[in-house]
Amino acid sequence: MTNAFPPNQQFRLAARPVGLPRREDWLFHEEAVAEPAEGGIVVKVLYLSLDPAMRGWMNEGKSYIRPVAIGEVMRAGGLGIVIASKSPRFKVGDYVAGGTGVQRYWAGSADDKAAAFTKIDPSLAPPTAWLNTLGMPGMTAFFGLREVGQPKPGETVVVSGAAGAVGMTVGQVARQMGCRVVGIAGGEDKCRFVVGQLGFDACIDYKAGPVHAALKEHCPQGVDVYFDNVGGEILDAVLTRINMKARIVICGAISQYNTTSQVKGPANYLSLLVNRARMEGMVVFDYAPRYPEGVAMLAGWMREGSVKSVEHVTEGFERFPEALLMLFEGRNLGKLVLKVADA
Amino acid sequence: MTNAFPPNQQFRLAARPVGLPRREDWLFHEEAVAEPAEGGIVVKVLYLSLDPAMRGWMNEGKSYIRPVAIGEVMRAGGLGIVIASKSPRFKVGDYVAGGTGVQRYWAGSADDKAAAFTKIDPSLAPPTAWLNTLGMPGMTAFFGLREVGQPKPGETVVVSGAAGAVGMTVGQVARQMGCRVVGIAGGEDKCRFVVGQLGFDACIDYKAGPVHAALKEHCPQGVDVYFDNVGGEILDAVLTRINMKARIVICGAISQYNTTSQVKGPANYLSLLVNRARMEGMVVFDYAPRYPEGVAMLAGWMREGSVKSVEHVTEGFERFPEALLMLFEGRNLGKLVLKVADA
Repeated sequence: MTNAFPPNQQFRLAARPVGLPRREDWLFHEEAVAEPAEGGIVVKVLYLSLDPAMRGWMNEGKSYIRPVAIGEVMRAGGLGIVIASKSPRFKVGDYVAGGTGVQRYWAGSADDKAAAFTKIDPSLAPPTAWLNTLGMPGMTAFFGLREVGQPKPGETVVVSGAAGAVGMTVGQVARQMGCRVVGIAGGEDKCRFVVGQLGFDACIDYKAGPVHAALKEHCPQGVDVYFDNVGGEILDAVLTRINMKARIVICGAISQYNTTSQVKGPANYLSLLVNRARMEGMVVFDYAPRYPEGVAMLAGWMREGSVKSVEHVTEGFERFPEALLMLFEGRNLGKLVLKVADA
Repeated sequence: MTNAFPPNQQFRLAARPVGLPRREDWLFHEEAVAEPAEGGIVVKVLYLSLDPAMRGWMNEGKSYIRPVAIGEVMRAGGLGIVIASKSPRFKVGDYVAGGTGVQRYWAGSADDKAAAFTKIDPSLAPPTAWLNTLGMPGMTAFFGLREVGQPKPGETVVVSGAAGAVGMTVGQVARQMGCRVVGIAGGEDKCRFVVGQLGFDACIDYKAGPVHAALKEHCPQGVDVYFDNVGGEILDAVLTRINMKARIVICGAISQYNTTSQVKGPANYLSLLVNRARMEGMVVFDYAPRYPEGVAMLAGWMREGSVKSVEHVTEGFERFPEALLMLFEGRNLGKLVLKVADA
């Protein structure tokens, strides 16, 4: 079969990983790109979003979204450009964000529910920001912090994974809300970035010493809101420093995603009792109808320079398996994206 | 020194226990009872309340209430009768409930903040009910379930420690609120009591088999509210069965109070994320201004026979150390009280 498009390349899930995903867990696959049918589009993927949550989608079992099936193209958010369209919704040259999957081309109905493409405005922010502050991580931060964490001006907000996509925006939004903001991140470079570039009040390097002592120093008034992206020992350390009626937002637990033993539950959870505090989970999809509100606020702050969208761009589609591991090795500074192609 | 009263007997804290409290952790002490000064009263203790929380008060370290000091009379709720009064608030013969401590006589100011005596009406309910359904355990159940758990009619409420003081009332109140109620308790006798006497829809015997399989059977619609008195593996099992937007009330963790290793945190806490669920701690004292509301509702239900106050009365003041252990050995059916004296 021949058509107007170069061959598609994909990473499909070959096996469910045990611990960190290995090369053998992926199937590199080539196939032709289908011409669009009536109502269909073809999207050329320019950037892929690499997210900790992807590790969870590779596991079997009930979660907030169905697992990726064995043999299926790996699920991923992506940003691309429409290169063929038989849909009135999109025209050739439009920039779109959506669930492209880990492949060079996406083809199908413009109304595909899983892909859920939306047109983005590249004049409002650079394309990669649409996978970051104006995309899922930004929406997660914005609604998770505001709706579940409910910080009040003057309160102390602590966020882990502070140099990562979600944490970065959580802290910056909390600053906009008049809070004292303390990040937790791994390594001096990240902490310097978080304080120097993002304007957090302080950042704790969890690799440099005990987190609970550092929390005592940097949160002299205790912790009112903790936005948790990492779980494990850091969650336990924060639990020892929470205030009465504190709110803990459970957004992720990257420290536990590749564990081959049982997940480490928070041994200090009885601090919730002592402090009449709350721990609550959130999933960004619940706020989908309100994304425009989040995008508008964040784009406004970005325009005035008070919120920064920082992406860590790594290149080369064929490097996807290694690029994904950068997240779990803590090698990204800001939102990790994989550049697939030029527009 | 001689006066009108027989000598007082007390159990004081001799040492902070490691694991289960031993006889050597207690100091049995005799002293004279002071004549009341102006504004003072003397209370003869009739019943002492034995509660799992007492174990926590014996530990050092920050909690929701200060630890009992070494050498201090052990803190306990009690019910007694006023036998001497120089206070206008109480007259001889009044029944009072409050923080008497583990002793035969309490003497001091009628306005003592720690004792916080309130007059009770023995015509409304038998005296022991004032240490149970109309006392702290009842208030804990009533406000914890309604204010933190927020069950709605038709929802499924699960409560652990179902045959204990708090759990017993949680389940009965949830039934009054139109919920399906499933208890968790240890042993056939307790489960028979919970279903047969208290009217729960079902009761899971955690000693008889895996709790999560039993939850699947008895909560076919999943779990909307879990009122946790026990922590440990049962909390983990319930976390696998919660519904979207479920509420978990953290009231206690009796399985962990005597552990000499680290507390077992809930390994399945990420179920909170998947289900956008909440885990929240509660301490009954926060609701003190609203106790009259709780007492009125519960007394009303008791009068009409729809809520039962069941006490497990064990006798003998000098048996206090052994009687307390009955809680941790799971030997009580209903609220455990120690009878100290006849009126």
